[in-house]
Amino acid sequence: MEKVCVLGAGSTKYGNLANDSIADITTQASVAAIEDAGVDPKEVKAAYISNVFGVADKQVHIGPVLMSNLGISDRPSLSIESACGSGSVSFREAYANVAAGFYDCLVVTGVEKVTHTGTEWTTTYFAYCSDFFYEGQAGASFPGLFASMARAYLTEFDATEEDFARVAVKNHENGFLNPKAHLKKRITVDDVMHSPVIASPLKLFDCCPFSDGASSVILCSEKFAKEHGGDYVEVSGSGRGGSPAALQGREHLTTIPSTKIAADAAYKMAGITPKDVDFAEVHDCFTIAEVVDTEDLGFFRKGEGVQAVREGRTSLNSEISINPSGGLKSKGHPIGATGVGQVVEVYDQLTGRAGERTVKDAHIGLTHNFGATGASCAVHIFQGV
Amino acid sequence: MEKVCVLGAGSTKYGNLANDSIADITTQASVAAIEDAGVDPKEVKAAYISNVFGVADKQVHIGPVLMSNLGISDRPSLSIESACGSGSVSFREAYANVAAGFYDCLVVTGVEKVTHTGTEWTTTYFAYCSDFFYEGQAGASFPGLFASMARAYLTEFDATEEDFARVAVKNHENGFLNPKAHLKKRITVDDVMHSPVIASPLKLFDCCPFSDGASSVILCSEKFAKEHGGDYVEVSGSGRGGSPAALQGREHLTTIPSTKIAADAAYKMAGITPKDVDFAEVHDCFTIAEVVDTEDLGFFRKGEGVQAVREGRTSLNSEISINPSGGLKSKGHPIGATGVGQVVEVYDQLTGRAGERTVKDAHIGLTHNFGATGASCAVHIFQGV
Repeated sequence: MEKVCVLGAGSTKYGNLANDSIADITTQASVAAIEDAGVDPKEVKAAYISNVFGVADKQVHIGPVLMSNLGISDRPSLSIESACGSGSVSFREAYANVAAGFYDCLVVTGVEKVTHTGTEWTTTYFAYCSDFFYEGQAGASFPGLFASMARAYLTEFDATEEDFARVAVKNHENGFLNPKAHLKKRITVDDVMHSPVIASPLKLFDCCPFSDGASSVILCSEKFAKEHGGDYVEVSGSGRGGSPAALQGREHLTTIPSTKIAADAAYKMAGITPKDVDFAEVHDCFTIAEVVDTEDLGFFRKGEGVQAVREGRTSLNSEISINPSGGLKSKGHPIGATGVGQVVEVYDQLTGRAGERTVKDAHIGLTHNFGATGASCAVHIFQGV
Repeated sequence: MEKVCVLGAGSTKYGNLANDSIADITTQASVAAIEDAGVDPKEVKAAYISNVFGVADKQVHIGPVLMSNLGISDRPSLSIESACGSGSVSFREAYANVAAGFYDCLVVTGVEKVTHTGTEWTTTYFAYCSDFFYEGQAGASFPGLFASMARAYLTEFDATEEDFARVAVKNHENGFLNPKAHLKKRITVDDVMHSPVIASPLKLFDCCPFSDGASSVILCSEKFAKEHGGDYVEVSGSGRGGSPAALQGREHLTTIPSTKIAADAAYKMAGITPKDVDFAEVHDCFTIAEVVDTEDLGFFRKGEGVQAVREGRTSLNSEISINPSGGLKSKGHPIGATGVGQVVEVYDQLTGRAGERTVKDAHIGLTHNFGATGASCAVHIFQGV
């Protein structure tokens, strides 16, 4: 197996990008990554796209459009969907192809454009990513499903709604330092507690926004990276896992099995333990999710995730910096782009260009991205070189 | 690299499957393939799904639903989209993962369910797979785009509309022998010539139908296949390629660049030439497409594809059997399933269970499947063992 590296990264702003087409923003992010890596487009052998609702902007089969825009229309491309975890799964497939030696240099681009369709369309279509037979058609959309997890957590552990609010406050603090964040705005616990109830106990500011956006990285073999020159970061661990699709199929509502499976595989491959991780971009689609994630990833014991937030141990440059980018909560959540955007953040952090939100002395970063309520999950570990 | 084999295959009927959900038919085909291979579901390490319009049946993120139905919800899954070429691209990704040793046994399942949405929805949404900026929004849908190719072919070469009709007649002859075909019905050249004009010179019977359906194969390492026992077929060649997304970007309308690129790579890898191929399942979404395909794949020289059809040289058990299954034209075209369905046909042929449509003494079969007007393409070559 070849060692695999990230050689460059780029992103559009996350937010409302209604004036550009989905093909435009896919191309913008890809060109930014290619230019950042300093590679000639002709060195890029294939494109791994991730996208869920291309239909929203009337462009499915985005790959060939991107390749044509890049002037390399002869090259293969594909789109990968795994709901909100699409980006990390596409990254994983690209990783596997470079590791196996099928390609030495790829572009991996995640994209979503939905805000122009409005909240009703988006909530309805996103619910198609749940187990529609058991959940979606019964009227459950994601705020309700995560609210069930939050309620279970409040019942089982020593936690309060204010604890969840603190996750939002922390991530908005970080996102305020991120020029590309969708919700670049500081908030207080009071703001969260007094925001409208969406699905009790979750309030508006417990939920990430619907965002448009595209993120892209250049993935290559270590040999390619060394010969080419420039800053690169090594992919040292990669793991995937699954959970029962519907919440009703799970033994517990306060843990996500796929996270543990994916993380165990990634830690084992990287030869590290959770204690070695300096910072992590985790899937905080709702505040409760981040709490559960940090426990399932092994950073804290079950039930102690809220205590860690309360004590500021997950804030920027504390015990472990969780979501230095602002996370899905503040940076935004263009669902097909999110997993790739997490890798962009890790690349920026480990190559020393994260500006005011820099995690000091960081050497190992982790990305954690799941689909739906965690029915699918991928975890990747990165090391600076 | 591990040698990769197909160990079992299964399919639903193709046609109007409005009474079953997309999750149901995905599961039916997958279970059929797993039972055919005689493997325990627990031996299946991951699922590679291909699907384009899950939104039509309100179930995106189908993988975890399938895995839950199979009782292996802890395993990873993903969906791959490359328009009408999704199935072969998903097969290719699964192939790459087994070849590289990441998994020893996978299920690859393609699925589409759209007929319940009606012709207008389907035509409109399918057009999102074109280059929407240059084609779709200008009012071009696929019948019109392929009609442009047909018109160019009639202009450049010694061909008639009756020649195109003969492709349809031949494929319906084959499909009549296929119990799972959507349009299991013999037709004549007159039937085609007198069917309603869809986009001149293409008439209704020059076009494949909109179909629902799911097809599935079990892909494994040679080592797994040998230890496990049972009939298997070797994947000896795999190639992918791209073309400019919009027709206007192409130098010629009577050839599809991605087919040549993908075929060249697959032939080279398998160490064979087009002459060695006994039968091929090719992408005949419209009759003109099959003519162009058989030339681009190297079976006939440019302009001679129609002559070959006229002389019956592509009929079952002639010089080269093209689309013994009935092809997209008669077997049907559930777009996410088609590429996998082609592999099911090859497996059935090379393991001697294709019944009345058996290609005699066949040892090497080829599948050719593209997306949109050939903006993306994958070619695979299979050998009996």
